[in-house]
Amino acid sequence: MVTFQDIKDAHARIADGIIETPCLPAKTLSDIFGCEVWLKFENLQFTASFKERGALNKLLQLSADERTRGVIAMSAGNHAQGVAYHAHRLGIPATIVMPKGTPFVKVRNTQAHHATVVLAGDSLSDSALVAQSLRAEKDMVFVHPYDDAAIIAGQGTIGLEMLRQVPSLNALVVPVGGGGMIAGMSVAAHGLNPSVEIVGVQSEQYSAMQQRLVGDAVAVGGETIAEGIAVRDTGALPLAIAREHVRDVLRVSEEAIERAIVMLLEIEKTVAEGAGAAGVAALIAHRDRFVGKKVGIVICGGNIDTRLLASILLRGLKRDGRLVRVRARIPDVAGSLAKLLTLVGDTGANLIDVFHQRVFSHVSAKRTEVELTLETRDRAHVGTVLESLAAHGVEADLIESATDD
Amino acid sequence: MVTFQDIKDAHARIADGIIETPCLPAKTLSDIFGCEVWLKFENLQFTASFKERGALNKLLQLSADERTRGVIAMSAGNHAQGVAYHAHRLGIPATIVMPKGTPFVKVRNTQAHHATVVLAGDSLSDSALVAQSLRAEKDMVFVHPYDDAAIIAGQGTIGLEMLRQVPSLNALVVPVGGGGMIAGMSVAAHGLNPSVEIVGVQSEQYSAMQQRLVGDAVAVGGETIAEGIAVRDTGALPLAIAREHVRDVLRVSEEAIERAIVMLLEIEKTVAEGAGAAGVAALIAHRDRFVGKKVGIVICGGNIDTRLLASILLRGLKRDGRLVRVRARIPDVAGSLAKLLTLVGDTGANLIDVFHQRVFSHVSAKRTEVELTLETRDRAHVGTVLESLAAHGVEADLIESATDD
Repeated sequence: MVTFQDIKDAHARIADGIIETPCLPAKTLSDIFGCEVWLKFENLQFTASFKERGALNKLLQLSADERTRGVIAMSAGNHAQGVAYHAHRLGIPATIVMPKGTPFVKVRNTQAHHATVVLAGDSLSDSALVAQSLRAEKDMVFVHPYDDAAIIAGQGTIGLEMLRQVPSLNALVVPVGGGGMIAGMSVAAHGLNPSVEIVGVQSEQYSAMQQRLVGDAVAVGGETIAEGIAVRDTGALPLAIAREHVRDVLRVSEEAIERAIVMLLEIEKTVAEGAGAAGVAALIAHRDRFVGKKVGIVICGGNIDTRLLASILLRGLKRDGRLVRVRARIPDVAGSLAKLLTLVGDTGANLIDVFHQRVFSHVSAKRTEVELTLETRDRAHVGTVLESLAAHGVEADLIESATDD
Repeated sequence: MVTFQDIKDAHARIADGIIETPCLPAKTLSDIFGCEVWLKFENLQFTASFKERGALNKLLQLSADERTRGVIAMSAGNHAQGVAYHAHRLGIPATIVMPKGTPFVKVRNTQAHHATVVLAGDSLSDSALVAQSLRAEKDMVFVHPYDDAAIIAGQGTIGLEMLRQVPSLNALVVPVGGGGMIAGMSVAAHGLNPSVEIVGVQSEQYSAMQQRLVGDAVAVGGETIAEGIAVRDTGALPLAIAREHVRDVLRVSEEAIERAIVMLLEIEKTVAEGAGAAGVAALIAHRDRFVGKKVGIVICGGNIDTRLLASILLRGLKRDGRLVRVRARIPDVAGSLAKLLTLVGDTGANLIDVFHQRVFSHVSAKRTEVELTLETRDRAHVGTVLESLAAHGVEADLIESATDD
C-alpha cells in the first residue's frame, strides 16, 4: 500500500523538479455554488498536468542500472509528456507507445521532450501488448500511469500541498480516471486531517471506479471531452485505497464538463481540459452535495485542442443566449434586408453573420428567408429582439437546431 | 512623489484584501525567446486585474467622513471593477461614470459589485467632465486610475512581490497605459535592487509615455485589442517617476499582441486580455532586447470578451497553418466532390467546412468551385495537401484573403 510517509518522502524527492502550484480562492464560483471554493492550479505545471509528480517520483527511485536501460510508458496524453519530460531532464532514455491514429500534435509534443515514440496497436489494449513486449525485449522499466505505489505517492503530493496551503479545507474534489491521483491525495489528506471528505468525479461514460465502489458491473464507453479520465477500469491498488478513503464518486455529464470549462476560462481566467474541469462540473451537477463546505478542487490538466476550446466557448455563448441564430422571413423586394438589419441594430444586438436563402426556403416565392447570427446580451435580450421584429411585422424565430454546432 | 516606504506600507495595508498572485517560471517561453521568463499572474486577482491594488490602497486611506460621502471613478474597464469591488467590501458607496455606448457586459459587471453606474458623455473626456461635476456636487472623493500617489503605491506592490518571490530577476516588463503600474513597480524594484531594468510596453496606437520619454509630440489613436492600455496621455506623476526609473518603453503591434494572447493561452494555460499580453508581445517584437536576461512579466489583466477570444484563437490557428481555406475547381459531374474529399482525407487533413459554389464562380460552366476549410498540422502539411491535389489533377489554391476573419 501507500503510506502518508511515502507521500511526504515523495514530496521531498520531487520538490526541485515540479512547481508547487498555487491554491487560490475562487470567490465568484463560491457565490454561484454556495460553498467556499479553492482551486489548485495543476494546469500550471510545465507539461500542464499533475502527471509529472508521479512520473518524477518513480524515475527518481530507479537504480543506476535501470536508468541506463531506460523506461517505457503507454499513453497518448499527459502521462506521456510527464514521463518524457522528466526522463529527458534526468538523462534517462524514454520510449512512449501510442496507439496508431493518435493526433499528430500529441506525438509531436512528446517527441519535443526527446522521447522515442512508437505508434503501434489499433486500440489502447493492443498498444499495451506492444509496450509489454518492447519492455521485455529491451529490459526497460515500465512506468504505469496509475497502478503503481510510486506513481500514487507522487500524485498524492497534490493533496499534501493543498492541505498545507489551506489547512481548513474539509472536502477535496478529485477527477478520477485510473484512480492514481485520488488514491494518493486521499492518503495525504487523511494523514493531515482524517475528517476531510474525499470525493471523486468521473464522466458518465467512464465511471469504472464509481461502479466498482457501489458493486455494479463495470460498463464504460462512448465519446467524451474528458479524454484524460476516459479509462476503461480503475487500477487495483488505487481501488483498494479508494475503498478505505473515498466517500463517494460523482458522475458528471458532458454538458456539465463543457460548462465547467467555460466557467473556468471566463471567470477564473484559466484553461482546463475536460478532465481538468471535472471538479467544477461536479459542483454544477451536484450543487447540494457541497453547500456550506470548504471545497478544494484540483484543476488537474490544461491540455485541450485550441479549435475544440474555441468551439466550446462559442457553444457556451449560444447556451447562455449570448450568441443566437434567428430565421426571418421578409418580402423579396429591394431594401427589405436593409430594413430588417436596421430593426435588429436598434435593439442593440450585434450582427455577426447573414445568410440570405432563396432557393430552398419553404415560404412563398414572394418572400425570402434570411438567417442572422447575432451577438446578444442574454436570453431576455433575445426575447426583446424577437418581440421588436414581431412588432414591426417581421416573422422570425430562433434556430435551435444542432446544425450550427 | 512615491517612496519605497510608501509601497511597503501599501503592501501591509492591502495584504488582507488582495491575492498575492503567483510568479512562476515559463519554460517553453524561455526556450522560445532565449531568456529566462517568469510570469506574474495578476489576472488571478478576483476582478482579474491588478487595478484592485491601487484602488484598495487609496480606499483604505480615506477618513471616516470621506468613506461616508463615498467615492467616484471614471472607467469602463478594470479600474471600475477594482474600485467597485473593494468599495463595496469596505461599505463605501461608489459611483462609476462610463461613456455612453459602453458594452452592456461591462456595465453589468460593475453593477454586480453594487456600484452606481452613470452612463454619460460620448467620449472619455466628456465622461470625465461629468464625473468631475458629480464629484463636486456630492462632495465625493475622486479615485483617479493612475495620476495619484496612493494608486501608484498600490500598483507598486506587484513589483515588491515579484522581487521578493524571485529576487534574481534583472528586468521587469510592464504594460503602460496611464503609467501608474510602471511608476509604482519601478520604485519598488529599485528599492530592493537598483540594477533591475524597468522596461515599459505600449501598443503602437497608444504610445504616449514612449513619445514623451523620447521628446516626441504625443500622437495617439486608432483601434487596438489592448483597450486596457489605450490611454491618450500618461499621468504627470507617473511620467515624472518614469523619467527617473524607466530604461525605455517598447512599442508592439496588434499582431504581436494577438500572438501573445494565443501563446499565453496555448502554452501557459492562462487567459490574458490584450493589455495583459503586452509583456509577452514585447518579447515577440523585441526578442534581442532580452536575450540572456531573467525577465519578469506582469500578466496584468484577463478580462477579454469571449467571442473575441474565440476569434483570436481561430486566427492564430490560421496564421500557423493549422486552419486553412482551400479553393478547388472540380468537374461538375456526379461524384466529383466525393473524390475531392477522399483525396483530402488521404492527406490527413481534417475537413471542417465545405462551401460548394456554382453561380458566381469564374470558371467554365463545366467546372464547379468548392471552398474547403481544413484543419492541418502546420504550414508544411498545407503544402502536402496542395501537392497531393495537384498530383491528382485538381486545380486548387489557398484562400489568403481577409474575408474569413
